[in-house]
Amino acid sequence: MKGAQLLYSGKAKSIYRGETPNRLIMEFRDDITAFDGTKKNVLSEKGAFNCCVSAFLFELLEREGIRTHYLGRLDRTTMLVKALTMIPLEVVVRNRAAGSIVRNFSFTEGQILNPPVIVIDLKDDSRHDPMLNDDLILALKLVTPDELVELKEIALAINGTLSEFLDGQGILLVDLKLEFGRAEGEITLGDEISMDSMRLWDKETGRSMDKDVYRFDKGDVMGTYRAVARRITGGRCEV
Amino acid sequence: MKGAQLLYSGKAKSIYRGETPNRLIMEFRDDITAFDGTKKNVLSEKGAFNCCVSAFLFELLEREGIRTHYLGRLDRTTMLVKALTMIPLEVVVRNRAAGSIVRNFSFTEGQILNPPVIVIDLKDDSRHDPMLNDDLILALKLVTPDELVELKEIALAINGTLSEFLDGQGILLVDLKLEFGRAEGEITLGDEISMDSMRLWDKETGRSMDKDVYRFDKGDVMGTYRAVARRITGGRCEV
Repeated sequence: MKGAQLLYSGKAKSIYRGETPNRLIMEFRDDITAFDGTKKNVLSEKGAFNCCVSAFLFELLEREGIRTHYLGRLDRTTMLVKALTMIPLEVVVRNRAAGSIVRNFSFTEGQILNPPVIVIDLKDDSRHDPMLNDDLILALKLVTPDELVELKEIALAINGTLSEFLDGQGILLVDLKLEFGRAEGEITLGDEISMDSMRLWDKETGRSMDKDVYRFDKGDVMGTYRAVARRITGGRCEV
Repeated sequence: MKGAQLLYSGKAKSIYRGETPNRLIMEFRDDITAFDGTKKNVLSEKGAFNCCVSAFLFELLEREGIRTHYLGRLDRTTMLVKALTMIPLEVVVRNRAAGSIVRNFSFTEGQILNPPVIVIDLKDDSRHDPMLNDDLILALKLVTPDELVELKEIALAINGTLSEFLDGQGILLVDLKLEFGRAEGEITLGDEISMDSMRLWDKETGRSMDKDVYRFDKGDVMGTYRAVARRITGGRCEV
């Protein structure tokens, strides 16, 4: 990002100061990491695919009346977003059991979770993102009781909208991770909605179409990202 | 337990078949363990002190209208209890931050938690008793939604009764772990209420008066158990 001031650099995205107040530039880098950052690679065009899919899905959610930080794409790997005061929570909505909850509890892989299960982790790499419960979230004063209710309602609404849309593209939304912040006092969806933050299975074959292909060496990561970006956006993400 | 049939042996207690249906004999052994069973010892008279204190506190709770499995003491280390279908949850009520939540989250040791914080773990040694949240508890069908509400209400009522009583003896109830089961369809308190399951601090000195003395080698474990049993029961537990 030539000229812009870097404010924060995470594992796969960087945040720069925008040209006007309360605006930030979010850059999707080609870095990909897994297992608490212990597995790392750089995959060419990964940032562009995730930026494009995120933009497409933020636009979809905005049309459904869900507040997001998205304001528009700037180029292939960057978008303009509202500055949020981030809430340090990772809100995971699960429609099927997969990943950590299968390792930690007696769910079977692919088990339908109806109603969807919400698991909220503390976003704190130094503590390895421990799971919270509602009492702990409130005792840590991370959100107010009303905000916690709203956070879950919004998370379920996002999950419902995305599940229905992706189903129409032949994709099962297994789970997704959401991060929220506050802008002018309103809970607002931040971060990204991409193949890094959603667990997606092909409805016909059950094959992974997300970062699990990278995590578990299931095949051609960028071929998968390219294919799923095409299916989600109807070909708007060709790079 | 001469003659009685052993049904189950845990880390510090054994359960035997009672002489009539739906009755069990619970034996408090002198075994003491910590850190997921990695630290183990046998301390003479520990079972008798825990049995006596548990009996005393179960009687106190019964007088307050709280359903428990306690039916009466049989001898120094055993009590007769109702057979419960146990719910595999460890319900921890915390009035002050101490122990695992200080290690795992940004609470400070001794921080007041008001309202009390309830943390519910899965009772499963093979999985190291992982923490649950409400959605996971319901998805795992461990209790019904109504039972989950009732479980928390009862846990808070027990915590309130015990906190008030112990405060009168100069003891701060920092936290306590409860286990519940069902008897004739009713949620009923099981297990024990002892120096192994409560975290107790002397109100004046802040000194530990519970298993933390053993866990963290803070001094004379059985001297502590003897002294706290005397304070809680007004001298009814001399052995």
